[in-house]
Amino acid sequence: MQDFHYFDNAATTMISDRALEAYESCCRLHMANPSASYAPGRESKAFLNDCRSRMAKVLGVQADQLFFTSGASESIAIVMESLLWAKSPGKVLISALEHEAVSSFIPLLKEKGWTVEVLPAKGGFISPETLEAKLTKDVRLVAVMAVSNVLGTVQDIDGLVSVTRRKEAEFGRPILFFSDCVQAFGKAELRLSDWALDAASFSAHKIHGPRGVGLLYLKKGQIQSLSHAGGQEKGVRGGTENLPAIAAFTVAAEELAQRDDEEIRRLNDIVRTGLEGTKYGILTPREGSTPYILTIAGPLPSEVAMRMLQDRGFLLSSGSACSNNERGKAEAIFRASGFAKAAGGALRISFSHDNTPEEAQLLVEALKEIG
Amino acid sequence: MQDFHYFDNAATTMISDRALEAYESCCRLHMANPSASYAPGRESKAFLNDCRSRMAKVLGVQADQLFFTSGASESIAIVMESLLWAKSPGKVLISALEHEAVSSFIPLLKEKGWTVEVLPAKGGFISPETLEAKLTKDVRLVAVMAVSNVLGTVQDIDGLVSVTRRKEAEFGRPILFFSDCVQAFGKAELRLSDWALDAASFSAHKIHGPRGVGLLYLKKGQIQSLSHAGGQEKGVRGGTENLPAIAAFTVAAEELAQRDDEEIRRLNDIVRTGLEGTKYGILTPREGSTPYILTIAGPLPSEVAMRMLQDRGFLLSSGSACSNNERGKAEAIFRASGFAKAAGGALRISFSHDNTPEEAQLLVEALKEIG
Repeated sequence: MQDFHYFDNAATTMISDRALEAYESCCRLHMANPSASYAPGRESKAFLNDCRSRMAKVLGVQADQLFFTSGASESIAIVMESLLWAKSPGKVLISALEHEAVSSFIPLLKEKGWTVEVLPAKGGFISPETLEAKLTKDVRLVAVMAVSNVLGTVQDIDGLVSVTRRKEAEFGRPILFFSDCVQAFGKAELRLSDWALDAASFSAHKIHGPRGVGLLYLKKGQIQSLSHAGGQEKGVRGGTENLPAIAAFTVAAEELAQRDDEEIRRLNDIVRTGLEGTKYGILTPREGSTPYILTIAGPLPSEVAMRMLQDRGFLLSSGSACSNNERGKAEAIFRASGFAKAAGGALRISFSHDNTPEEAQLLVEALKEIG
Repeated sequence: MQDFHYFDNAATTMISDRALEAYESCCRLHMANPSASYAPGRESKAFLNDCRSRMAKVLGVQADQLFFTSGASESIAIVMESLLWAKSPGKVLISALEHEAVSSFIPLLKEKGWTVEVLPAKGGFISPETLEAKLTKDVRLVAVMAVSNVLGTVQDIDGLVSVTRRKEAEFGRPILFFSDCVQAFGKAELRLSDWALDAASFSAHKIHGPRGVGLLYLKKGQIQSLSHAGGQEKGVRGGTENLPAIAAFTVAAEELAQRDDEEIRRLNDIVRTGLEGTKYGILTPREGSTPYILTIAGPLPSEVAMRMLQDRGFLLSSGSACSNNERGKAEAIFRASGFAKAAGGALRISFSHDNTPEEAQLLVEALKEIG
């Protein structure tokens, strides 16, 4: 990516040097299967649990609340699929902002007799009041992502969970509160141990870790998966543990602490300020958003603008991280957020610490040139 | 693992140098998300499909029949979970040899009203006649692994599928034939394009590839997953593609062609011959087995023998690859195969090309010493 100014860090990030070193080193030093009972196997297992403890420290939770998975999509699937064990179907509330990894479970749930309601997201936010109004006695699960991958808006998870807990007490039946925290990790305040949520998902490759590894946080340290496979990760996620990727993910997570959000805020400000008085509108509100994601809307159709920007050396996205190939997905989220008109010209700029102020300034110039 | 003679290659293998190089190189050269629509994203996508084509060549199938997953457990789960879409439950036939990644779906299937019958495995083999007798009109899926991870026995997949297809025609209803080919890949003849099976699973880390990546072969190129997540892998397996691991898996698979099975047969013979006239019995039959796995039974309890062998520098397993921590699993397979008495003293020796004839001879000496 040396030839490009990369502003699509919400889609994926470059793995950090230290994370890649950790991957390689683990391949050599801990090749034994952590399930093997001989000494090197037990050492692999100890190393795995050491990674889990270090990750728990980064997230401010208990190690036994964390489960390594193959990525956020799998973490999400474990939570959504756990509903299939229910003796009788109920209702699920899913925010309009959710990634497809969550919303693509709607057809299955409906097929199995579940009712699915979508929580509106005016301006990119899910309000606790809206949630409260929809929390009826048959609700079994609420899913609200912590930070929108499309708009960068930060949700009031604390308020949303509080409302849910109040209703739960009133109904006398548990409601599982799940939050996809992929875009929150390292980009917004995460207070898992304060928030009374039940489950949360994380991805490594969005924080300069490797592909193919993620985390599932479970407050109670357990959930009923569809199968336990080889019994790894306490049966929550079976399959031989991807130890090198887990080691690399752990290093990448620890590196987050050394990063300075102020630098990102500066990049964000350069673009915001630079676009004032131009044909571009800013969709991401200044308040209540992560500085890492800045979504704007210009006069040209997104695809045209993206191509023209690419010709000038800039890579960014038209909407959601992972669905540029199918534009409809991000558009639905723009519509649900009240940005229907702007959707056609939306551009998502997502920063990382590899970006420089000079690059941000050049991006502004390029945007003005084409807009 | 430099300090040990490693004879547990059915549990996991050391990643090859070239595979690890491919991993690293891909991290740098193809960091863009394959779903991104800009040029580097499209290059990542092209590279992904190049890996798929190369893998298809290795396996002798069409590229559009292959789907990259996070490992064999996930490949298996996609097939087993597809049953949940059925309007009404039916019957599933699962061989007694299956890995827990398959058999751990039994509780879910039963909960959902399915009938599950286990196919007996006398001497470590599933006979087409036995299968035929159990193939009633309500059978929707048959699962028989190609090579037993516990005994190394090679199943007559061609015969088993033929019986199934005949019954299928008789009943006029499709029966999905699935074979877990994890231990067959690189260790036994694989004729996917000749065999009329519907689905097969593969793992990278058993063939000197990386952890956290596997393959699902689908004859018809499609199956209904529980959800399509981000829509990757044609919706069969969503989630950002683990491109570096896929690249490394592809290289490891291509390296299989350069390996000489005769070398492994020589190692196998050294141990077989060396143990003649000792207290050790050979459970793995000479005919109809892969030379890569040799399971024996000695006078000492497996755990004791393993520890004594470890003290002498040898690592091997008591039974199944991934379940040493829970011995009951391999024991059930020994019982089902008619080796109930020998199960307590079973030792699985699994070879790779990193093993030398000298090491095999030393292993024989160590076995005699403790036996």
